Amino acid sequence: MTDGRHGVHQPRVGVVGGGQLARMLTHAGERLDLEVRILAKPSDTSMRGHDPLVTVGDPDEPGVLDAFAATVDVVTFENELVDLDVLRALEARGVAVRPGSHVLAMSNKATQRRALAALSLPLPPFVVTTEASGVEKFAAEHGWPLVVKSATGGYDGRGVHMVDDAGGLATLGFDGSEFVVEPMLDIELELAVLVARRPGGDTVTFPVVETVQRRGMCREVHAPAGVSSETERAARHLGESIAASVDAVGVLAVELFVVDGEVLVNELAPRVHNSGHLTIEANDTSQFEQHLRAVADLPLGSTSLRVPAATMVNVVGDTTDVDPRDRLAEGMAAGDAAIHLYGKAPRPERKIGHVTSCGPDRATAHRDAASVAAALMNEPV
Amino acid sequence: MTDGRHGVHQPRVGVVGGGQLARMLTHAGERLDLEVRILAKPSDTSMRGHDPLVTVGDPDEPGVLDAFAATVDVVTFENELVDLDVLRALEARGVAVRPGSHVLAMSNKATQRRALAALSLPLPPFVVTTEASGVEKFAAEHGWPLVVKSATGGYDGRGVHMVDDAGGLATLGFDGSEFVVEPMLDIELELAVLVARRPGGDTVTFPVVETVQRRGMCREVHAPAGVSSETERAARHLGESIAASVDAVGVLAVELFVVDGEVLVNELAPRVHNSGHLTIEANDTSQFEQHLRAVADLPLGSTSLRVPAATMVNVVGDTTDVDPRDRLAEGMAAGDAAIHLYGKAPRPERKIGHVTSCGPDRATAHRDAASVAAALMNEPV
Repeated sequence: MTDGRHGVHQPRVGVVGGGQLARMLTHAGERLDLEVRILAKPSDTSMRGHDPLVTVGDPDEPGVLDAFAATVDVVTFENELVDLDVLRALEARGVAVRPGSHVLAMSNKATQRRALAALSLPLPPFVVTTEASGVEKFAAEHGWPLVVKSATGGYDGRGVHMVDDAGGLATLGFDGSEFVVEPMLDIELELAVLVARRPGGDTVTFPVVETVQRRGMCREVHAPAGVSSETERAARHLGESIAASVDAVGVLAVELFVVDGEVLVNELAPRVHNSGHLTIEANDTSQFEQHLRAVADLPLGSTSLRVPAATMVNVVGDTTDVDPRDRLAEGMAAGDAAIHLYGKAPRPERKIGHVTSCGPDRATAHRDAASVAAALMNEPV
Repeated sequence: MTDGRHGVHQPRVGVVGGGQLARMLTHAGERLDLEVRILAKPSDTSMRGHDPLVTVGDPDEPGVLDAFAATVDVVTFENELVDLDVLRALEARGVAVRPGSHVLAMSNKATQRRALAALSLPLPPFVVTTEASGVEKFAAEHGWPLVVKSATGGYDGRGVHMVDDAGGLATLGFDGSEFVVEPMLDIELELAVLVARRPGGDTVTFPVVETVQRRGMCREVHAPAGVSSETERAARHLGESIAASVDAVGVLAVELFVVDGEVLVNELAPRVHNSGHLTIEANDTSQFEQHLRAVADLPLGSTSLRVPAATMVNVVGDTTDVDPRDRLAEGMAAGDAAIHLYGKAPRPERKIGHVTSCGPDRATAHRDAASVAAALMNEPV
């Protein structure tokens, strides 16, 4: 089952993290015969069936990441939950870590906001504080309600708090850790732009998409975004500026708000991203292949949409005992969409799959994607 | 790394054969969280990285296929090189074998031709014979040169002989085995149509494609075929008639000749097929997913092209020591195409990969696919 010549001349890519993003990176790598190895936690179930390429271990435990790095030529990430000191030690030893620890440091939302502010990019008004009094001072200027985000540990809406008044601060637990505080913006539209960048600086940018969030979690993505060419240009420019300024390598996802016609940077993720899942079906090169090309320092591919319109809808666990893996027939019968399930057991508010529909226009793509996702969860559309 | 609930409610699909078709079936299954197990020969290298789902063994050895069948709910095939008696024994024990042994029996070209003739379908003139005198008798009626095909064991041009005159028959080695004899037709165009059919008879048909052969091996496929609607209808009708008449289950590939404006059946393959590789990128549902849906008796998907045009070009080993796995950078730089490499060492006339380009028209798609395939093999376009 082996072929000795394989992988001799192409970089072997090691991905830290074993969730659905790792799985989709693995698929992109297999198609190219590019060796993609995964460092997964014991609790990760998305990589079942790929054992020879999967190392099970916790990257934060001493030696685990070092040993993994020794089996590959470049280390990359499917999530930002990695100890930066461990990464810096790897880099100091000459391991190719892409993106670098300085980019992953921006997974701390306070660090990220300060870095973006230093670049003079359009941002929402914000303050970073460790104390309730800091929030109250910001409220005196911007009014209640406010959005208070933990600098670390948040994703998919976790760690983000809507606070109506000073009384609501008691539950946040100020323990010296940082929070990013913002006003509740009147957001017209949320957008995302994905940029892929090689170590030498070659960069490609995907068409801007519209994202739809609910309870802090991305639920739907529409391509193209359907915005004016001015907004599209502004969004692309922000993505490209940030990627170059922070010397990102790989895919960098930039989430954006449109407020009063202006495009503001919401936040970054230095990795493949939920807003890019529809690129598998809808674009000439998927974000997953693009990320592998970038971190392996291979030529980047076309980012063009190859269909008129595409919609992605996430499949999210709920409080019922419905498992979409039991409902493939219902999902397939409900419309034309590519179903992606991640090998994960359903739990409330857990992303366990997504569906993408390509169509002649957004309404058609949206209808099919929403119908299939709803049928998989036995929910009304 | 396991999740106990997985696969409890969906059929587990067992694929006999471990080449690139098995690998692409595996990818389609993973996306759907549908368990696809593979019975691969020790020499198969395309399934590297999937060991937990791969059984290594020769299906013709006693007990191997039985043991494999016991681990899945339905048995299907990525090639036709399976002992029919073993399959019949499985069927007799109630194992779901899809397509059934009566369909796989048609991998014998003599059996296939007789079956198609019995259906009164438009075929090239032919005779089945075991003797040189049979060929000479056919030549007396149709003239030389003739095409003489071994009834068994042929693929990718192997087992097919162009014979210029009676003197050329000596090398064929008539040993009692059957040959199908045909005139050298003046073929205007070669087409292929893929039909997917569920056990109950539900059927979908992919848009007809044009195939380009060289030395008996498929080299290029173009979608859409660009034929008249009359020819398209005739081709689809032939595919659907055959699938229904022989009670095919899964994907059935029907290769067709256009001669004097008439569509003739060339031959069948009761499985996913090289002519359908471009469906991964170009169609709403790929042939691989469609085959899994069909054999697992799940609703079939849309077969529509989601792009204006697509071209697939095979990457075929040659007599140099060029290995496309060493030339990803050159291939990626040569044009916009999805590169698929199969984990196979290059050997002359061995299919080791393919590339598919989607574009606004055939000329653009063809140019990119041909450029990328040529660059991967370091050949002139």
